Amino acid sequence: MNKPLRVGVAGIGTVGAALIAQVASQRAQLTARCGRPIEIVAVCARSKGKKRGVDLKKMKWFSDPVELAGDSSIDLFVELMGGAGDPAKTAVEFALASGKSVVTANKALLAKHGVKLAQLAEKSGVALNYEAAVAAAIPIVRTLREGLTGNAVNRVYGILNGTCNYILTRMEQEKLSFAECLKQAQDLGYAEANPAFDIEGHDTAQKLSLLASLAFGTKIDESAIYVEGISSIAAADLAAADELGYRVKLLGVAVKTPQGIEQRVHPTMVRKDSAIAQVMGVTNAVTIDAAGINPITLIGPGAGGAATASAVLSDIADVARTQVGYTRLANDKLQNSGKPEFCVKVAPFGRPTSILTSVRKAPMQRHEGGYYIRLQARDKPGTAASIATRLAEQEISLESIVQRHPKDGPSADTAKGSVPVILITYATSEDSVRKALAAVGHDKVISGRPQVIRIEKN
Amino acid sequence: MNKPLRVGVAGIGTVGAALIAQVASQRAQLTARCGRPIEIVAVCARSKGKKRGVDLKKMKWFSDPVELAGDSSIDLFVELMGGAGDPAKTAVEFALASGKSVVTANKALLAKHGVKLAQLAEKSGVALNYEAAVAAAIPIVRTLREGLTGNAVNRVYGILNGTCNYILTRMEQEKLSFAECLKQAQDLGYAEANPAFDIEGHDTAQKLSLLASLAFGTKIDESAIYVEGISSIAAADLAAADELGYRVKLLGVAVKTPQGIEQRVHPTMVRKDSAIAQVMGVTNAVTIDAAGINPITLIGPGAGGAATASAVLSDIADVARTQVGYTRLANDKLQNSGKPEFCVKVAPFGRPTSILTSVRKAPMQRHEGGYYIRLQARDKPGTAASIATRLAEQEISLESIVQRHPKDGPSADTAKGSVPVILITYATSEDSVRKALAAVGHDKVISGRPQVIRIEKN
Repeated sequence: MNKPLRVGVAGIGTVGAALIAQVASQRAQLTARCGRPIEIVAVCARSKGKKRGVDLKKMKWFSDPVELAGDSSIDLFVELMGGAGDPAKTAVEFALASGKSVVTANKALLAKHGVKLAQLAEKSGVALNYEAAVAAAIPIVRTLREGLTGNAVNRVYGILNGTCNYILTRMEQEKLSFAECLKQAQDLGYAEANPAFDIEGHDTAQKLSLLASLAFGTKIDESAIYVEGISSIAAADLAAADELGYRVKLLGVAVKTPQGIEQRVHPTMVRKDSAIAQVMGVTNAVTIDAAGINPITLIGPGAGGAATASAVLSDIADVARTQVGYTRLANDKLQNSGKPEFCVKVAPFGRPTSILTSVRKAPMQRHEGGYYIRLQARDKPGTAASIATRLAEQEISLESIVQRHPKDGPSADTAKGSVPVILITYATSEDSVRKALAAVGHDKVISGRPQVIRIEKN
Repeated sequence: MNKPLRVGVAGIGTVGAALIAQVASQRAQLTARCGRPIEIVAVCARSKGKKRGVDLKKMKWFSDPVELAGDSSIDLFVELMGGAGDPAKTAVEFALASGKSVVTANKALLAKHGVKLAQLAEKSGVALNYEAAVAAAIPIVRTLREGLTGNAVNRVYGILNGTCNYILTRMEQEKLSFAECLKQAQDLGYAEANPAFDIEGHDTAQKLSLLASLAFGTKIDESAIYVEGISSIAAADLAAADELGYRVKLLGVAVKTPQGIEQRVHPTMVRKDSAIAQVMGVTNAVTIDAAGINPITLIGPGAGGAATASAVLSDIADVARTQVGYTRLANDKLQNSGKPEFCVKVAPFGRPTSILTSVRKAPMQRHEGGYYIRLQARDKPGTAASIATRLAEQEISLESIVQRHPKDGPSADTAKGSVPVILITYATSEDSVRKALAAVGHDKVISGRPQVIRIEKN
């Protein structure tokens, strides 16, 4: 029997407990598949007394994660504490610097310090794996990092936040307001008491920053992402989208453009017959467009203890399989270090950090695509002509225009004496749309602010 | 710069040519991501003169694939000739036996000789990779072999044949007959002149045999699969399915049951709101159910030169990344062999061949699930009562029953003086269904053969 891979886990919440349970229940399979046992030999958490439903008796207890990270009783450090700062940051740095591979589910940490941590991992010749940090059980990191090694990726986009997708699904299916559905999501535990991080798109942005790096070889940079949340979406938008053959999803999109990599998070209209439009509720999904191949879409649970633990365990198993007793040095010579070390098979972000490229925030006024526009137009002669003229001035062509008096009189979304007008444009620039709508505003033919939702071609 | 991985490719059809083009266009990216260049240094095909649209001038030409497989100028042998027999079999065996890793897209070869070839690969300590053999660009082999190392898989099922899915999609959308849609598929090049291998389910079965082994650790055994094709499906079935909230798909299903692993290929009713039901046209998809996690579904192109080449290249890149100059021996000691060899990270079927388990063909009469039954009932008093009685005798409960006179008189599918009756049963056994229908037949209350389609819960 080969020596076991000795694992230390910092953070025993839902995911940590699920991981410990899964390792216990799959012991024989893991040993057979990795060629050696995987043993969680040490754990660290804030409260030792807390009931967690798993047996920790045989594990060494640490109250300081940094101490665990550097302890010689472990080969691999699993970080499940979360947070971009300490103690997670220092603990992971310490583990990598002391030659231990690291597995983490911490998207915030990687979004902020990913490149620096990858450099540390490279220097030590150890692995830094983080499948669970993006869309939990969906094998998207593996697919981009290893599966598409030889593909020119054109675009990667996805539903990366279950809370938002749950809210949008409920709004569409039950014709409820954003506020009502957010409340339901909170009652069900799908949304935090302070939901801003999810609904304003920041959670999606952190995950997108990792996917963009893997897809395009960019340096992870959350600040280069344009971010817009879903709180302005009305039931009327979802109904109009439905009628026009679309659904509204909060997408994170990273796409190659002539001006560079454009990264953005915003509510998006997607064609109802696309795979991603079918993804309802808390489920996540990611679609990859690459040169020469039709899109690949991966769908699955993007959160939850068991789903996240499953991804963490797949990362641990990768390390267990590739630990061969020799370490690969930076100059690619092998050195027999006398103790089991790691044969690292892949750079943390798919490419050596030295060739990751900087990325700038793409100005959204330059964004090109189709647009959905919903206006409350004053119900008087000449309004439609006035709107059409302003769009024409900006050379915006319309795919469709729907103006209709609500069946049952004005709804909550409509003002008195006004009718909703829905416009779908052909591809144009965001700048043109904003200018046209500013002119429409000046003409005083609409009430309220126009609703604008970008259409993602798929 | 590290030494290049020297690749020899046998078979330069659509996939081979796409592979050569992709390696050329992605040269810099591949070198950066694998830590060394990937170079196709030798090729083998039947006709040297044939125009292929790629530059073969710098490559050594072989007319005998077995000679190429054993040639010392290559580190890795790529087999794209196809076919379960020679020359593919001997060439792959020869390459593995002479210490070369092998990448193949050949499902027929693996379905028939996979276990034996995996043994050879293990013995030599080299890789045997075959992502392209199942669903082309969909990373399903990688996901089952490496991603779900620590998961107890309960079921894996998928749309694995684009031809069948194209035909069923057209039949549903255009309300055409099977024969008409098959003809269209042939005209478009989606179906072979002799379409039996696809439409009778054998192509799906070969792929399923590989997925089942990866998911459950079974020995690959195509003969253990129950196989039924789609040629008996009528437009009336698709219309009835649609009305009842289902779609008909040809699925390959491998599922854990109390009696063992059940493997089957047959037309299947799936709920329209499931991810797999949304997959239309030639696209492929695979869904995995594992303990504790909601299903993961992977969707993408299951055929085509570029999509298949992309999967082949990801397998080649895996070998390039893991070749570290040392070979791992069977006793798990490392040996410096003096020349670059391979650090194999994963067994070809995810587990050592020594622990793969034999699997028997599950008798379908024992299959349990819901059933769709379409009967042509004689249009006279007592018919419905008679049918209901026979089902009740077998303790079959009905979820729904639809009997309706066709709006526009009898259609092509209905006989004179008869009405279609559609039954959806709750979970029961196939044996009960067959017995009940035999009794209904004896009662002479129906005309023609009943149509029976299994419902897959999802």
